[in-house]
Formats: sequence, structure tokens, C-alpha cells
Amino acid sequence: MQKAIAGIDIGGTKIAVALADSEGRMLSHLRFPTQVELGAHRILDNTITAIERMIQESGAKLIAIGVGCGGPMNRQRGVILSPTNLPGWDEFPIVEMLNRRFDVPVSLDNDANAAALGEYECGAGRAFDNLVYITISTGIGGGVILGGEIVHGVGDGTGEIGHITVQPDGVPCACGSRGCLEALCSGTNIARRAKERLSNGEQSSMRTMVTDLSDVTAHTVTDAARDGDALAREIWDDTIRFLAIGINNIIVTLAPEAIILGGGVSTAGEQLLAPLRRQLEARVKIMPLENIRIVQAALGGESGIYGALILARRAAASREA
Amino acid sequence: MQKAIAGIDIGGTKIAVALADSEGRMLSHLRFPTQVELGAHRILDNTITAIERMIQESGAKLIAIGVGCGGPMNRQRGVILSPTNLPGWDEFPIVEMLNRRFDVPVSLDNDANAAALGEYECGAGRAFDNLVYITISTGIGGGVILGGEIVHGVGDGTGEIGHITVQPDGVPCACGSRGCLEALCSGTNIARRAKERLSNGEQSSMRTMVTDLSDVTAHTVTDAARDGDALAREIWDDTIRFLAIGINNIIVTLAPEAIILGGGVSTAGEQLLAPLRRQLEARVKIMPLENIRIVQAALGGESGIYGALILARRAAASREA
Repeated sequence: MQKAIAGIDIGGTKIAVALADSEGRMLSHLRFPTQVELGAHRILDNTITAIERMIQESGAKLIAIGVGCGGPMNRQRGVILSPTNLPGWDEFPIVEMLNRRFDVPVSLDNDANAAALGEYECGAGRAFDNLVYITISTGIGGGVILGGEIVHGVGDGTGEIGHITVQPDGVPCACGSRGCLEALCSGTNIARRAKERLSNGEQSSMRTMVTDLSDVTAHTVTDAARDGDALAREIWDDTIRFLAIGINNIIVTLAPEAIILGGGVSTAGEQLLAPLRRQLEARVKIMPLENIRIVQAALGGESGIYGALILARRAAASREA
Repeated sequence: MQKAIAGIDIGGTKIAVALADSEGRMLSHLRFPTQVELGAHRILDNTITAIERMIQESGAKLIAIGVGCGGPMNRQRGVILSPTNLPGWDEFPIVEMLNRRFDVPVSLDNDANAAALGEYECGAGRAFDNLVYITISTGIGGGVILGGEIVHGVGDGTGEIGHITVQPDGVPCACGSRGCLEALCSGTNIARRAKERLSNGEQSSMRTMVTDLSDVTAHTVTDAARDGDALAREIWDDTIRFLAIGINNIIVTLAPEAIILGGGVSTAGEQLLAPLRRQLEARVKIMPLENIRIVQAALGGESGIYGALILARRAAASREA
């Protein structure tokens, strides 16, 4: 009987589930909205049903599950602890519940760590052993991979790079600190900065791009900046400058072989990467920057589900060992 | 015949040499001024002579040498590349030269990495597997230890934390960038900031503590601040604030179990640590800071030579394996 592994990537807006053979080749793949209003138990039930159906269709035997999910979490206990993007997931013992249903090893990790692992094995990080993955989305998170392994740190705190200070005594951050990278450069906060400037009455073509100011997103800013709008360009330039400070700090601390940018904002591609590289060249002087690749994630929104499958494969391998 | 390992710690002002038995217990220890004017070859000759005498006196057989030295260097090739504190050490093949004289494995590493290793095995880091060592001295350097191993990174760049940006678009740094931690908080730059304020005519008891303004050091600032001098306190408070930004950035990136502070400025002890911990409590909000120890180095000026001996012991062990 063919052996299969399952990956689950749980996000605030959608859940991805995938089945792969024991070498990691994807057999099936499903994506559905999270419907946070259903609550953790029903969402997990639906996810389990999806996996059971996939297994049945494949005729394979499940040997391990990998799960990527927003933190905070207690990986040792396999418990999710109140992620901001999953209201109601408080002390949710996801590993125990999956164990109960499938009786296979379950490996749980932070969604950014899973995405970092996905890019490392299947995406933009394949040529490197040491890399930092940064997701710039609703929030800013990260994953650090050294020697092919996720670095977790005390309380799984490694990679909380959204909370690098890039503006000392700057704007308040949701975490309670000030001037954090996330408070300025997450998709939400790029949009916030644009909306504040527009509310002040500043001229911009962004007004004509939305029916209501509240509809302004980071994509409104990048689109308008690409079309030459002065205000959008200023906001985007500031974004790049703050990102360059944050990434400089990661580079001088770790000197990774690659910085991989994922998440919605990274889809701006060269509009993000070209000026970011220029800013980094002006800032990183203590080491030759040409040895460090600054690249876009290759798997886009799929980094996380690939990572979850790798978590599963590694869990199966360590069980066999 | 008893086996011995030798450690060499090469600094800009002094060189330490030590001999230890194969379990790392120190047999003899010598320290002498670097006399940079003699040049790399004669300095190394004197160092080799010191080691040969120690070996002779101990009656032991040398099996490995560890060397800590200021960077930049090419560890793979065993070559020192123009450290700022060792003028004339350009492309100096120190490993080959030691190999030629002693015919034993030689392990070369950055002095801050060696000091980190010394604190990890013999000092303030003994309870931890993952730590960041920061030396605040003439410059600011660092070493990152994860799972008991020095992290080196691309071009041995890991731990260049003196070049974390803590003041965006701030004062120029010797590296060519701006607003680096080192440009504000190294001993030299703490003194520079004090001298600038004093040159502007500001009142301070620091004037009475030196015969000439050029004699002001970081210790003048900490001494005057301890005695309540308002200007010295302001300069010291700024120092702590910049250090807290830099250390916040290390903590959220790596979440190490401990941050260990060494180097001359760290001898201020609780005058440094107490306000630094308070500033970090106000800044690090994304993870519980009580899980991360912020402590002073335990070996003082000896961290480096202990680290060099550990490099030697590890080199001997990997040769045997």
C-alpha cells in the first residue's frame, strides 16, 4: 500500500490541505475559506473530513501530518494559543485532536517557519543552507533556517522580525512596542499610512482608484506608485527604507546566504526588490552584499502548504529512525 | 606523555597565550603587549617562542592550537585580512605559519566568536545552548552560538551586530554606513559623544576629571554619571537606549536564551545592566523577556583565551574522530 503524508496550512482567511507521497510529490491539494465564525473545533472537523476524503481517493496509507498555523503556540504541547488571525483558537490542542483521529505523528510549527521550510526545500531557497524568510502580509513574520533546520529559539520566538525597531520611538505597534517594522511596513500599515495622508487632504490619484478611502490597500499604493503618483511613491519609498533598515539588521546579525521575501506585499516583485537592493547597498557596508541574495519567494501563496508537507515528511522520517 | 593544547588570543594592545591539558584545565598562561610596530611576522615569532617555552616547561606534547584574532579573515584559508586593530597584518597566513612550526591542527576564528565560545563553555553562558555574546569595547562585535556551535554565516559575517542600525540616517560609522550601534555605543564613540558636548561648552564635572578633553573615555562618562553629573547621565542614558534598540533587534530575530555583555564598557556592571533591562522590558513586547537572560560576561578579559583553548580542543577532537 502506498504511503502518504498530509500537510495543513491554517490561515486567517483560507486553509490549504494537501496529500503527498512519501517523497513529497503532491497527490492532491485543496483550498477552502477558513470561516472563522465556525470556531476552532468545526474548522478542524472540516479539515479532517477533507483529509479523510483525500486519503480515501488516493488509496494510500497516511503516515504523518504536518501543520503550519499562526502563532503564538506551544509546539512541545501541540497547542495553539490565541493567534490574532484566528479568534477563538485559545489553548486549542490541535496535535492531540489530529492524533486522536489519525494515530500518526503530527508536527506543528509556526506558519512563517513552515513557509520558510517550503521555500528552502522547494522554492527560492533550494540553493542555500542558511536563509531568512520574511513574509510581508497583514503582519510581518519570518523564519530562520540554519543548516537546513528551522531555528526556534526561546518560546519559539525566533523570526519575530516584524518587531525589529526601524523607527526609534516611532508609531505604536500592535505588540505594545513602538516603531516596529510591522507597524510601518505590513500590508495593513502601508495602507494605514496612505489613508492618513489622504485624510489630511493630500492630492493623489489613489482617490480615484477607490470608492471609499477605507478601501485603500497596499496594492493601491504600489499600483499608484508604479503609475507615477507622487504621494504613493513617497509612501512606497518610506516602506522600502524601513524594510532596508530591518533587513540590514538581520544581515549583520546572521549573514544568511539569502533573504527570501514572501507574502502579499512581496508580489510587487522588482518594484520592491530593485529599490530595496539599492537601499541595502547603501546601508550594509561591513560585509560584501553580493554574497547575500535578496529574492522573492518562488512558491507564492503555496510556501506554507509545501512547508507543512515537509514537516510531515520529517516527522515520518524521525519516527522511522 | 601528557597531551596539551595551546590557545592564542591576539588583540590590538595585548596577546594572551595559554597552555591547557586535553580536558581544558589551564597549565600556564602568559600575557604580553602586542607591539604592533614590530609587524606581523615578529609578533608571531615572539608568540611561537612563548608557546615553545610553555610546552618545554610543561613536558607535555602539543596536539592542537586555537587562535582568536580580530577580523576580517578567511577562516577556510587560515589567513588574516587587514584587521583595523592590527596594522600591517594583510593577507597574513597565520594558520600555515603555525602549522609549519608545530605540525598540529590549528583552528582560527574571529576574536568575538572565540570569546563567545569561552563564555559558553566556561563563563556566563554555561547554562545555555543558544546565546549571543556582545563585546562593547573600542568597537562593538559579537558572536552567535546555537546548539553549542559558533554560527559563521556568509563570509564569516554572523555577529557583526555593531552594524545594526539604531539611529536611522544617524551619525556616520567607520564602516561607511550611518547610525550603526558601534558608531554610538562603542567605548570610543561614547567618549566621542561626551567630548563633542563638552567642546560645545556644556557644564559637567567631567571637565575636572581629566587634564585635557582628549583624555575623556567611556569610563569618565560612567564614573561621572554614577556621581550624578547631569551631562554624563544624559550621554549614558542615550547609550543604554541605543543598546536596547540593538539588543531588541537581536532578541526578536533570534530569541536566544541569553545575551552576554563583555568588553571594557560592560565592566560598568549593574550601572549598565539594570537600566538596559528596564529599557528592554519597555521595548520587547512580542515575547516574554523573562525567558531571556541579559547578563555580564563572567570571564572578563579572559573570555577570548578560554575560547581559543576550546577551539584547540575541538580541533584536536575532530582530528581524532
